[in-house]
Amino acid sequence: MEQEEAAAREDADAQLMYRIERPVYDEAFIRSQLLSRRENSTTLRERLAHQFRCSSKRARAAALSFLPILTWLPSYPVKQYLFSDVVSGLSTGVVQLPQGLAYAMLAAVPPVYGLYSSFYPVLLYTFFGTSRHISVGTFAVVSLMIGGVAVREAPDSMFYVLPANGSNMSAVLDVEARDARRVQVAVVLTTLVGIIQIVFGLLRFGFVAIYLTEPLVRGFTTAASVHVVVSQLKYLLGVKTQRFSGPLSAIYSVKAVFSDIASTNVTTLILGLVCLVFLYAVKDLNERFKKKLPVPIPGEIIVVIVSTGVSYGLSLSEDYLVDVVGKIPTGLLPPAAPEFSLLPSLVTDSFAVAIVGFSMGISLAKIFALKHGYSVDGNQELIALGLCNFISSFFQTFAVTCSMSRSLVQESTGGKTQIAGLLASFVVLLVVVAVGFVFQPLPQTALAAIIMVNLMGMFKQFRDIPTLWRTSKIELAIWLVAFVASVLLGLDYGLLVAIAFTILTVIYRTQSPKNAVLGHVPGTGLYCDVDEYEEAAECEGIKIFHSNSSIYFANSDLYVNALKKKTGVNPEHLKEARKARKKQKEKANSNHGSPPKICVKYEKQGVSHAVLSYNGQLGDRHSKSDSEETVFLEPPHTVHSIVLDWTSASFVDSVGAKAIKQLVKEYAAVDVRVVIAGCSRSLLAELDTLQFFSGVMTTDMVFPTVHDAVLHCRDSASHPTAAPADETT
Amino acid sequence: MEQEEAAAREDADAQLMYRIERPVYDEAFIRSQLLSRRENSTTLRERLAHQFRCSSKRARAAALSFLPILTWLPSYPVKQYLFSDVVSGLSTGVVQLPQGLAYAMLAAVPPVYGLYSSFYPVLLYTFFGTSRHISVGTFAVVSLMIGGVAVREAPDSMFYVLPANGSNMSAVLDVEARDARRVQVAVVLTTLVGIIQIVFGLLRFGFVAIYLTEPLVRGFTTAASVHVVVSQLKYLLGVKTQRFSGPLSAIYSVKAVFSDIASTNVTTLILGLVCLVFLYAVKDLNERFKKKLPVPIPGEIIVVIVSTGVSYGLSLSEDYLVDVVGKIPTGLLPPAAPEFSLLPSLVTDSFAVAIVGFSMGISLAKIFALKHGYSVDGNQELIALGLCNFISSFFQTFAVTCSMSRSLVQESTGGKTQIAGLLASFVVLLVVVAVGFVFQPLPQTALAAIIMVNLMGMFKQFRDIPTLWRTSKIELAIWLVAFVASVLLGLDYGLLVAIAFTILTVIYRTQSPKNAVLGHVPGTGLYCDVDEYEEAAECEGIKIFHSNSSIYFANSDLYVNALKKKTGVNPEHLKEARKARKKQKEKANSNHGSPPKICVKYEKQGVSHAVLSYNGQLGDRHSKSDSEETVFLEPPHTVHSIVLDWTSASFVDSVGAKAIKQLVKEYAAVDVRVVIAGCSRSLLAELDTLQFFSGVMTTDMVFPTVHDAVLHCRDSASHPTAAPADETT
Repeated sequence: MEQEEAAAREDADAQLMYRIERPVYDEAFIRSQLLSRRENSTTLRERLAHQFRCSSKRARAAALSFLPILTWLPSYPVKQYLFSDVVSGLSTGVVQLPQGLAYAMLAAVPPVYGLYSSFYPVLLYTFFGTSRHISVGTFAVVSLMIGGVAVREAPDSMFYVLPANGSNMSAVLDVEARDARRVQVAVVLTTLVGIIQIVFGLLRFGFVAIYLTEPLVRGFTTAASVHVVVSQLKYLLGVKTQRFSGPLSAIYSVKAVFSDIASTNVTTLILGLVCLVFLYAVKDLNERFKKKLPVPIPGEIIVVIVSTGVSYGLSLSEDYLVDVVGKIPTGLLPPAAPEFSLLPSLVTDSFAVAIVGFSMGISLAKIFALKHGYSVDGNQELIALGLCNFISSFFQTFAVTCSMSRSLVQESTGGKTQIAGLLASFVVLLVVVAVGFVFQPLPQTALAAIIMVNLMGMFKQFRDIPTLWRTSKIELAIWLVAFVASVLLGLDYGLLVAIAFTILTVIYRTQSPKNAVLGHVPGTGLYCDVDEYEEAAECEGIKIFHSNSSIYFANSDLYVNALKKKTGVNPEHLKEARKARKKQKEKANSNHGSPPKICVKYEKQGVSHAVLSYNGQLGDRHSKSDSEETVFLEPPHTVHSIVLDWTSASFVDSVGAKAIKQLVKEYAAVDVRVVIAGCSRSLLAELDTLQFFSGVMTTDMVFPTVHDAVLHCRDSASHPTAAPADETT
Repeated sequence: MEQEEAAAREDADAQLMYRIERPVYDEAFIRSQLLSRRENSTTLRERLAHQFRCSSKRARAAALSFLPILTWLPSYPVKQYLFSDVVSGLSTGVVQLPQGLAYAMLAAVPPVYGLYSSFYPVLLYTFFGTSRHISVGTFAVVSLMIGGVAVREAPDSMFYVLPANGSNMSAVLDVEARDARRVQVAVVLTTLVGIIQIVFGLLRFGFVAIYLTEPLVRGFTTAASVHVVVSQLKYLLGVKTQRFSGPLSAIYSVKAVFSDIASTNVTTLILGLVCLVFLYAVKDLNERFKKKLPVPIPGEIIVVIVSTGVSYGLSLSEDYLVDVVGKIPTGLLPPAAPEFSLLPSLVTDSFAVAIVGFSMGISLAKIFALKHGYSVDGNQELIALGLCNFISSFFQTFAVTCSMSRSLVQESTGGKTQIAGLLASFVVLLVVVAVGFVFQPLPQTALAAIIMVNLMGMFKQFRDIPTLWRTSKIELAIWLVAFVASVLLGLDYGLLVAIAFTILTVIYRTQSPKNAVLGHVPGTGLYCDVDEYEEAAECEGIKIFHSNSSIYFANSDLYVNALKKKTGVNPEHLKEARKARKKQKEKANSNHGSPPKICVKYEKQGVSHAVLSYNGQLGDRHSKSDSEETVFLEPPHTVHSIVLDWTSASFVDSVGAKAIKQLVKEYAAVDVRVVIAGCSRSLLAELDTLQFFSGVMTTDMVFPTVHDAVLHCRDSASHPTAAPADETT
């Protein structure tokens, strides 16, 4: 079967031939005869002028890109889109609401701030955003990071006060003062995050997100889910423990909860588990009947409403001591300047939050853009998110980005444009100004259940481990480092460590290249690793060394060593052998008066080439004379040329260039010619600036392909004039 | 002239032809027919077994490599080498002595510890070292780094005590207690440096030194020289100021000296300047008459002896208040355990000292080894230095490495083996146990002059700046960052910043590749940038995109964007255009009943290929109908294939692979074929593990060379069956 196919192929390809017949080129010839540089007409100044040219067209484009709503709103097809957007907006709003309440708990601020954060930024995104499908708002990982900072800056221990009525009681936690302080911290952090995102966006630094490679993000978010679940355990169990932050906080938290597990509130636990099971079932149903359901079942809002009702009806808070959400003020707060005095200690944290927030946003936005065939502008997204965070922070919100689960709701319910997000924000607004107080009896354990179920998907990411094991060990290492570091060190340091590690993997990849000695696959002009492929045949007297990396400071030594080892041609050994031979010869001359050198010439594969060979008999004759002769008895080396295949090299720095020149010199001293093949033209230009072609290096040692180099070496080895200089000279 | 040469060349090359005639290959064919993998006989277990095999031969080799003296001493040719080694050893010892005294000042410890450090480690290196020419001992940069740490850990402010006799005087600095403490710090640091170097050596981490690329080392050592000169200014002027450490210490030091410049001791200054001028003149003479002088003039020891004599004769210390070396105890100290309680705060510093020390040593050792044709073992050098530091630290020494100036003395005076170093250490020993007290009246300003003159050479490194500007901007940036960071932040943080920056430059290089659209240089099979070379001609309908970088997470987005921009083929635009066209066509069909598509076929360069073209008339006919038609009026795209030239790609990660698959899909949706050319076999193996060839990607879309890919694309575009699917389907 296979053979027939192959035969059929061959027939079809019979006419399609790869046919080249030309002289062997070297770089000197290419430069003088073959290629002429095109005059580049633009100077630096012209390019700069072009870059900073000002025109009304440019101004208009800038305005439009800054306020994308001006582009899409005027052409909004009301008939086609409005109905879907309304349905989607209402559905998303209904999810936005419980998530806002729940994620506020993660952010360590009172629930109402979660509602604020689900309104202002969402409203603003409508104007500045370029993605039509993402749902901006509270997000578990970012909320948790904020919460970590808030707890660190305003720990419980700071707010124990002696009760006013007397000294017979122990100190009591002043919850209100603590929460007020935590809100301040969260708000200032958000302002800072906004500023960082805006500045990054204006500087066109959207690309920083690329360092967050997928395995890193997945390992990191899995770790974040672990943190979230750990932080919610106590709410689910109704255990009252301290909240920890900083390195090892996850471990401390688990330890605290389990050491206090005896005080579990059974009512809380049962209620929480019921919510958990219900939400999970709803999620499963929604997933399974995706196509049949017009709108996903809003499990979360059902849980909120029912558990609020139950809690209120049975007075769970008073009679069963179940922790409830508590005071939710009605209405919005007037804008206020954040407490900037807190800034200095939050700078590093805000960088972490800003980068995580943005990279979550842009990755989701890109997925949807791809699916629906439009494009998002990374830098404008960065500016949009930054503006959302910055402006909203004056209205007491904490940092937002978009959430995966909510965006999927918005998209799957038919959301077409940012109008859906706008409507979702109005749903939240309605609750805040009208019926917020209704949710006061909502048990915290229900919110914990909502958070946990929303993170179920994240835990599926553990399945990456076996997949990555099979596909790429390096990426598995990135995943694991991101996960372990983020779980143990906390999300901020964990992210830092993960990014540093990711960058080092790139260094590692360029620094530990795969090396191979290549051989010719006869008749094809192709060269393959001789250790890997049976057809690859080494050319007599020529070693072709391939390395799949650039040559620069971090690997030039390794390159040279690998070359010597792989090719088996070591100039030091050759030099010693030659010294010994010379001594030998002097002796021989004085003894016998005749030079012992014999030059063997033979033909193979239609190409004649000369190989210097050292007469074996000579060694035999003198084998007993002295110890240095053992060197001389080694098999004679027959390699006259080494071809460095630089096809894969993308850059060479001065250290690399020096190492190569040194190498050429060393080999020249033992009459082995080193030539370079397969340089790209951009690499050659770089070598020119490095003044690489001076002294021992000349452009006629550089060939456009390995085959050119091999042909040249074979030819000049067989030419008597071009043969390596006679040793006796 | 040039033309003649070229003509001559052409004649010579006329016989040497590059001639290949074979079918066009794709990867599917290569795998099934052309290449067969060689069975690799060694399994992982076998390789491990081989690695850990134990034999007496191995044990002997390990012992010999650990104690290189066992290799070279038995075959030491006494007649040939001993005399040179004695001369060289005495000369080096004479230099070792004043440098030891002087660098102890840099290390902020009493001078006698400099002498200890010039004896013990030098002695030990004889046994463990593999380099025959480097002179181990005190070194300015390392001494300065130690001094910085000692001052930080034991600042003057800690040692002010109230005089015992009464309270009418202000607090007095307890110099003895302070110095004792500083010695403790320096000694513990040295122990730690030794341990780190030994561990690194045993772990075969000698390669870490490669991150210290040449521009970094030169920028760093220049900065170190600035620090040294700044720290010596006060001794030269005889001004008494505090010693600073940590970030910005250089600036504080200069400020302190200049604000106190009125208190300059004129005698000190004159003496210092005389020494400075004398030493500089001697250095110049030695340089100029290198070949005529049998042994370099020992300027330093002359300065030491003469200035000691002058100081003693004129009682400079008492009568002119010139600062002198002061108490030098006679004899050696008994071994004592370092004060390990100081360890924790010194860990980071010791890493910095260990790495700088080692990299100085190995770079010098390599230079000499290359010059004299022997080899040094990086890891054994690391162990040797580590043992020198570790063992010596129990005898109260501070960390050593080899110094450039001293090693040059040792080598130029004819040193042949480590015996020279051994003799130099005996010279120092003699002084310590017998005549050390003689140097007590030696003025500090003379030592400052010795230090400064020794660093003259380092300042010549400023000349690197214009050179690097011409050759490599990136390396210039590394030099400048290393210099500025090390001057401003101190040597430890400076080094860290410089290394981080250097690593980022590698990322930058791989991440911001040079992209080009290639064209064929007719008749050669070579492809060049069409913007750069006049001869390069684009093939009709085929865009060849070359990028000189691997495709991985940090640049896959940039790669895709660059591709779309450079080739001018944007699938989104094409899709929109197609939608518009379809609408158009539907209209046209309902109006006219005939499909407007016209397929233009033409011949060029002997190869026929079809190009899909959209009838221009159609646009004209309907140009007034609606706004979406403007898209349709754009020039028709005629590109049917895009060739990705992956010749320079050395690795692809999962993010990159995903991006490429996405790209292939996007283009497939608009009937543009994307093929890959020039993958190395190691990259193909990597792509296989990434499961890249599944779904849209097949192995027959991969070609061994760009020319294969182009021939294939041209052919299948002209084949009716293989032509892009008709749009209407």
